[in-house]
Amino acid sequence: MSDSEHREMWEKLDLDLNAHDALLEVLGKFYGDIFLSQDNRLKGAEYLDFVLSEVHGLRIKELQDAKSQGRKVVGSFCVFVPEEITLAADAIHVGLCAGAEAGSDLAEQLVPRNTCALIKSFIGFKLAKLCPYIESSDLIVGETTCDGKKKAYEAFNDVTPTYVMEVPQTKTKAARELWRTEILRYMAEVEKVTGKTITADKLKQGIKTLNNRRRALQRLTALRGSDPAPISGRDALLINQISFYDDPERFTAKINELCDELEARIAEKQGVAPAKTPRLLITGCPMAVPNWKLPFVIEGSGAVIVGEESCIGTRSSRDLVDESGETMDELIDALADRYMKIDCACFTPNDERQDNIADLAERVNADGVIHYSLLFCQPYSHEALKVDRTMQSKGIPMLSIETDYSMEDVEQLKTRVEAFVETLG
Amino acid sequence: MSDSEHREMWEKLDLDLNAHDALLEVLGKFYGDIFLSQDNRLKGAEYLDFVLSEVHGLRIKELQDAKSQGRKVVGSFCVFVPEEITLAADAIHVGLCAGAEAGSDLAEQLVPRNTCALIKSFIGFKLAKLCPYIESSDLIVGETTCDGKKKAYEAFNDVTPTYVMEVPQTKTKAARELWRTEILRYMAEVEKVTGKTITADKLKQGIKTLNNRRRALQRLTALRGSDPAPISGRDALLINQISFYDDPERFTAKINELCDELEARIAEKQGVAPAKTPRLLITGCPMAVPNWKLPFVIEGSGAVIVGEESCIGTRSSRDLVDESGETMDELIDALADRYMKIDCACFTPNDERQDNIADLAERVNADGVIHYSLLFCQPYSHEALKVDRTMQSKGIPMLSIETDYSMEDVEQLKTRVEAFVETLG
Repeated sequence: MSDSEHREMWEKLDLDLNAHDALLEVLGKFYGDIFLSQDNRLKGAEYLDFVLSEVHGLRIKELQDAKSQGRKVVGSFCVFVPEEITLAADAIHVGLCAGAEAGSDLAEQLVPRNTCALIKSFIGFKLAKLCPYIESSDLIVGETTCDGKKKAYEAFNDVTPTYVMEVPQTKTKAARELWRTEILRYMAEVEKVTGKTITADKLKQGIKTLNNRRRALQRLTALRGSDPAPISGRDALLINQISFYDDPERFTAKINELCDELEARIAEKQGVAPAKTPRLLITGCPMAVPNWKLPFVIEGSGAVIVGEESCIGTRSSRDLVDESGETMDELIDALADRYMKIDCACFTPNDERQDNIADLAERVNADGVIHYSLLFCQPYSHEALKVDRTMQSKGIPMLSIETDYSMEDVEQLKTRVEAFVETLG
Repeated sequence: MSDSEHREMWEKLDLDLNAHDALLEVLGKFYGDIFLSQDNRLKGAEYLDFVLSEVHGLRIKELQDAKSQGRKVVGSFCVFVPEEITLAADAIHVGLCAGAEAGSDLAEQLVPRNTCALIKSFIGFKLAKLCPYIESSDLIVGETTCDGKKKAYEAFNDVTPTYVMEVPQTKTKAARELWRTEILRYMAEVEKVTGKTITADKLKQGIKTLNNRRRALQRLTALRGSDPAPISGRDALLINQISFYDDPERFTAKINELCDELEARIAEKQGVAPAKTPRLLITGCPMAVPNWKLPFVIEGSGAVIVGEESCIGTRSSRDLVDESGETMDELIDALADRYMKIDCACFTPNDERQDNIADLAERVNADGVIHYSLLFCQPYSHEALKVDRTMQSKGIPMLSIETDYSMEDVEQLKTRVEAFVETLG
């Protein structure tokens, strides 16, 4: 795809071309420094590099081509939106831009200053006309997972129509019933937007497709338990990030190939860092593209990241949907049950997250845990205190980091992370 | 009740006597400055002064006496907890301490620094052993109205058992069904704690008692539409605050007497401030005892407060429960419907609050609106931006204030409020 074709497409999507050029330039430079500079990188990383380099290019072209053939695009911000339903209507499901400082000054006219960077980012991306995914979406889906997003979607809806799903706050039977109703409501909305009828067969196929994606990611998680670490945390995070953008079948095939390569590496005791390098598990808020700040700081501090307990990490891949159902009722039940297993901090209580972090730390042989909260993210900031107590009780060292998307605190973060990594030596 | 009887009671409740003495001393001084110094005060304010002076004394004695006769005490933090159910089990329902800086350093060990003052306060009151209501409660009830409280109750539950009700986040039929289920679950819990069976007759009586309290408060709201204002905003806020502590029947009788006095005043064109004094409506976060900072600043700036659109204000009294039901099912439906009308910022969307503020501003003849958000209260901070747009569209001047319980910003608030009041002249 030529530069002029790119620009023509972006222009049709009404992006701010100059600001978008500047964004891509920064992103490219950032990507080079953080990813391309790595030693002992996998051959399979070529796929990652290509997808990322074309994340606003070829992938958007694919969406446009699909749209011109009558398919619809659904954009969302959260792992609670059941992509299986989207796929069952032959629509494409993508994550929306939320990982960089963009249009913050515009966003602060719609949401309070004390709002987390992720929320300000998705609003800023829209207002500053920088996100081709938002502009390609036929349906934008929000959810009530935190006060910040819940209320921000009201303002966002004034700018671009936003459909909101109610995620319950407990895991009682009645809460599960509410959530099942919300899945059906979402299904009706998707059928309306796409003009397609979702059949049990199509839904079953959607479930299988996404379970296969989850299985590939589970395989990756398991392989990261090896020492030396066969893949960097940056590349593994990138894989998780790309899972929200790329076609699920292509992604699954590519990640399984990459896992084959990892297995060969492991057999040869090859890794991205020497054996016995301090191994860290990151847990907490999601890191959307291109929010690579903290992983870069950590892996520049003599440690290697071996897991991400996060929505853009194991939270989105840990649980499969039961594939045994045949009727629509059975399949919807299976979806409701699977999504209610998500251990998001939006639930109270959410003790299973404590168990899941401890379990993952053991499975990936982590020497320590870094809890990452976005500034003003109340659910994860609260749970950080609890995770700290859990880790203490298990004898696992933990460092709690609260930050945003700005680069102002990078040096301070480096100092704190380096000091933490030294204690693990 | 003698001083020594007070102290003996507090000691039995395991309060920190020295810290509690200090708290009461500050509170007394504060009360004198803010309330007793007012001109043209109502005779009916004697009741308020008495209740407030004995809020940790005689009222607690009453709770203890009731407990010794086998009755139970339920403590809560939110207008969503259906007090009708509590009364139907012959139990006493009280609000818990949350309006002053107390034990903040202790609270910050359990909740993040970026937590609103109200949440830090209730945790601090418990940890610093300063709230006789918490210590008298047989059941403490939280709810999921905001991320801050929802997650704070988890930590609070480790200190003192806390029962949590799930308040839904939308007003769909399924959400209303969830809430109805939560009312039934609460009823079962109250029956368990009290050992009483709640009958339809008892519940109907509870509904009537609380509707009468709401009617008295509605009457007060209506009388405040007069010019000159017949009662200060401080005294009206205090009435609303006391409604959460005092016996509902006594309270209702006393407030109706006070309203009789107001009617006589209005007939004689008497008021607490001259006619044409700028009239302000406060809207936003609840002001729990003794959070009188902003009302004091406002009424010291040449304005009079004529309404509080807040949980400790019209939000708790605006809607009555339908009293026509006879069966338990009908009464529970009536409760569910009434509570689902609450226009809390926890709901999305919550457009009815916009209408309710505009409507109240008209009914009390407000010249302007002050939106009050607690720092880090995300739901109300978001809605402040929306209320601002609504007020602009109606031509009603608005000032948005974000503050906490500290006194550090009083001078700054005065400057801002005085400047705002001047523009209304």
